[in-house]
Amino acid sequence: MNEKKSPLDIAASLSELWSPRIIGEVDDHYVKVAKLKGTLAWHDHAGEDEMFYILSGCLEMQMADRTVHLGPGEMFVVPRGVQHNPVAEEECLVMLFERKTTRHTGDVATDKTRSIDQQLP
Amino acid sequence: MNEKKSPLDIAASLSELWSPRIIGEVDDHYVKVAKLKGTLAWHDHAGEDEMFYILSGCLEMQMADRTVHLGPGEMFVVPRGVQHNPVAEEECLVMLFERKTTRHTGDVATDKTRSIDQQLP
Repeated sequence: MNEKKSPLDIAASLSELWSPRIIGEVDDHYVKVAKLKGTLAWHDHAGEDEMFYILSGCLEMQMADRTVHLGPGEMFVVPRGVQHNPVAEEECLVMLFERKTTRHTGDVATDKTRSIDQQLP
Repeated sequence: MNEKKSPLDIAASLSELWSPRIIGEVDDHYVKVAKLKGTLAWHDHAGEDEMFYILSGCLEMQMADRTVHLGPGEMFVVPRGVQHNPVAEEECLVMLFERKTTRHTGDVATDKTRSIDQQLP
């Protein structure tokens, strides 16, 4: 893992939507990238914060009490325990920082849900 | 802290070189930005990895056995315990991801060294 990487290039190369790819580790956290389009699922991570950094495109982070609209180069941390649903009208490439234990869609399982093993390079 | 942010814009607004600014937290890690030009100092972080993501410009990460040259949009994780010295010939804006306990220049103190308190927004 210990080489320089281009998160944008790796995210752009992904063939599957909503399927995060682990590209690095920092202590007990993973750095991931993903290609998003459409809607994931409403879920939360009870004990884990989750950071989104937009590499290209736009992402709408729906939460119970508000929606945050993110554009290229913007970041947002979804705090632990906050129900959220990421939505991308057009293709969006993101970089994520999250604890290694963080489950993709929390306690919710959908056909988009990917295990950590499935996110390894 | 819980708003969207533009790491590039915040980094560009910094007036002081080599003085990281905390812009977010993810569990026990901070997200920081910094404006770099010149040389910091040889140091390591015995128990903490440190991720660099280049927002603009170029950074040379000198290590004992090799040097990694980073350009815009590239990332590199300096593993714990590895002596490193970041060098930027021209102004470089970076985003960092590191454990909250990580000391700026490890056990080394220089006139550039900033405490965590000095890095808070």
